[in-house]
Amino acid sequence: MGKVICAGLGPGDPELMSVKSDRVIRGARHLAFFRKKGRAGQARAIVKDMLRDDVIEYPMEYPVTTELRFDSAEYRALMVDFYAEWADKLEALARDNDVVVLCEGDPFFYGSFMHLHTRLQGRTEVEVLPAIPGMVGCWNAIGDPFTWGDDVLSVLMGTLPEAELVDHMTRADALVIMKTGRNMPTIRRALETAGRLQDAWLVEKGTMPSERVAKLADVDVADCPYFAIVLVHGQGRRPEADG
Amino acid sequence: MGKVICAGLGPGDPELMSVKSDRVIRGARHLAFFRKKGRAGQARAIVKDMLRDDVIEYPMEYPVTTELRFDSAEYRALMVDFYAEWADKLEALARDNDVVVLCEGDPFFYGSFMHLHTRLQGRTEVEVLPAIPGMVGCWNAIGDPFTWGDDVLSVLMGTLPEAELVDHMTRADALVIMKTGRNMPTIRRALETAGRLQDAWLVEKGTMPSERVAKLADVDVADCPYFAIVLVHGQGRRPEADG
Repeated sequence: MGKVICAGLGPGDPELMSVKSDRVIRGARHLAFFRKKGRAGQARAIVKDMLRDDVIEYPMEYPVTTELRFDSAEYRALMVDFYAEWADKLEALARDNDVVVLCEGDPFFYGSFMHLHTRLQGRTEVEVLPAIPGMVGCWNAIGDPFTWGDDVLSVLMGTLPEAELVDHMTRADALVIMKTGRNMPTIRRALETAGRLQDAWLVEKGTMPSERVAKLADVDVADCPYFAIVLVHGQGRRPEADG
Repeated sequence: MGKVICAGLGPGDPELMSVKSDRVIRGARHLAFFRKKGRAGQARAIVKDMLRDDVIEYPMEYPVTTELRFDSAEYRALMVDFYAEWADKLEALARDNDVVVLCEGDPFFYGSFMHLHTRLQGRTEVEVLPAIPGMVGCWNAIGDPFTWGDDVLSVLMGTLPEAELVDHMTRADALVIMKTGRNMPTIRRALETAGRLQDAWLVEKGTMPSERVAKLADVDVADCPYFAIVLVHGQGRRPEADG
């Protein structure tokens, strides 16, 4: 009897994955990972120098990229079938072997693996190895403490309605905004309305060699990948008289 | 010329620190860490089996424990002196050596190291190694995906006013509440007002051998350490038709 082990990869620098994920990935004989059709895959790229010579790879290719809207019924139906099919395949593989599934960031924090995790419950043993979330790598890339004292941190998705973004941006001290990409014009407008735009950073591929850190106000909103993260540092609530 | 390296330790299990923190700590000749007066120190306990035989240790003992209120002027003055004194000592040490400073969780996420980081700017080179925040270890200990789809996550300190806690608890999907301890009666009341108490978990020492996971509603609020974390999972915003 084997099990499914989801190894969190962290923000991108292979040295920032946990000692445990590192060991599990180096020892993996069966290795599954998500990727877009026709791409090498970011998760696979992170571990490229760590794999056994005799590793057997299972690329789990998302059935669509940009042809369908994320909120369309066709897209949802395709994704449901996709996750169900891979849950079946992983369950079958885990009857005789351990299978390692790669997951960028922390698997339980907005990770794709949770769709498999839900479906595998009661069917096979599943172990999840936590990791540094992408946002932590991104605020580390900026190089300043991110939350202090009694700061409230809110993590928001750029897909939320603009009014709701403004509401949270106004009430919280520190902000993380994920799922940016084509939502960036909305995010930027919401930050401006909330009076936070001048303090906002855009971080792309934090901790990776191609890392890019910029003030959001200086960035062309049309030139922003989906996985870039917007960050606003907490400032306001330091219980210590600091300085 | 040396530098100050702050090594994030993650949530507590030594196997969950990064490959890089692990290597840096195993190689450290000069090692500083915070601890309460008269205690061994949680950070030091995490690395106890990893240190060189010839390591030189610098316990940075907090000047007070519970004699003074955290928000009193005396406490603030003592802490300011304490951080200033250790910034001076670390700067002096780093003239000739690398000095590794241990930090539980992620150093830039509500970490004590930031008070030294601020004071050391421009005086010596400072490198910070990110780590898995304590809250990530705690939600991993519960074993279910924590945030999904378009969930809003808010991280709150138990020291906030009750009305503000209720406000954020009502508006966000997933919740993390830190600095619990003696604030637990307030936190519990706020969760009840926001209609979230039945979904709240209390996790103490997540990922460590003495880990404790319980439904908050079943816990005696008088029996809650300061570093226990309250968690409420996101549920509400799954773009996929899941199940």
